[in-house]
Amino acid sequence: MYAIVIGCGRAGAEVASRMCAGGHSVVVIDRDKRAFARLAEGFCGATIVGHAIDVDCLRSAGIERADAVIAATYGDNSNLTAAQLARQQFEVPRAIARVKDPVRARVFAQLGIETLSSTTLVGDAFERMLQWNGPASNGADAPPET
Amino acid sequence: MYAIVIGCGRAGAEVASRMCAGGHSVVVIDRDKRAFARLAEGFCGATIVGHAIDVDCLRSAGIERADAVIAATYGDNSNLTAAQLARQQFEVPRAIARVKDPVRARVFAQLGIETLSSTTLVGDAFERMLQWNGPASNGADAPPET
Repeated sequence: MYAIVIGCGRAGAEVASRMCAGGHSVVVIDRDKRAFARLAEGFCGATIVGHAIDVDCLRSAGIERADAVIAATYGDNSNLTAAQLARQQFEVPRAIARVKDPVRARVFAQLGIETLSSTTLVGDAFERMLQWNGPASNGADAPPET
Repeated sequence: MYAIVIGCGRAGAEVASRMCAGGHSVVVIDRDKRAFARLAEGFCGATIVGHAIDVDCLRSAGIERADAVIAATYGDNSNLTAAQLARQQFEVPRAIARVKDPVRARVFAQLGIETLSSTTLVGDAFERMLQWNGPASNGADAPPET
């Protein structure tokens, strides 16, 4: 798999490092080169300093041949825009936006963007650990089947 | 269940709101009263403005009769300290620290603190969504069985 991970915060670094360890080709983009220090030791992918929604930057990362784009910056709206660019302009088969705000996650899903709501995931995990009876969710807000 | 949620960021607000909706008694502590705006509409628990590791604040939240403490501030170390205080000084049956740094999560688990690594959860979820072969994990770093 050829994947582009946008945003090298903790989540982005984690997913990029794991994909690399799994033998996949990964390019990580962050606007701050210091962020790449979060990548696991032995990270074998490429890093690019640039902005999440800069088309030239995405092109230089090879988005035209990417199998997946993972948008994991700190900004929910940037992640949405990056995922939409990937899907609509570059026809990347999979584009997933990490979203912190569960309300935004639902709205984004309605716009046809695959989202992963970290807040929902954490809520679900606390619930499993404490085993109380709260509302169920699978953490991922998939867009409706088309 | 009588639970104290420390930190009303997105994760704290999510878990507090869900517990309240599930019919449990919840007290939420945050040092910034504006954080309580994140709680779900109709939130039925109590809110206290105070610090995560202020013993007087924890006492006024009723920690001595709490069944669970969930430490979900933005600071990994604050969450560890709050969870340790709850377990060791107040003998709260369950104390879980949300931890962003996966390395810290493992260290904290070795110290006998139940942790929930949001970064690991997000990594796992991306992996499931993209179905590549990475290292497996359940997201929660439980302390070793004693």
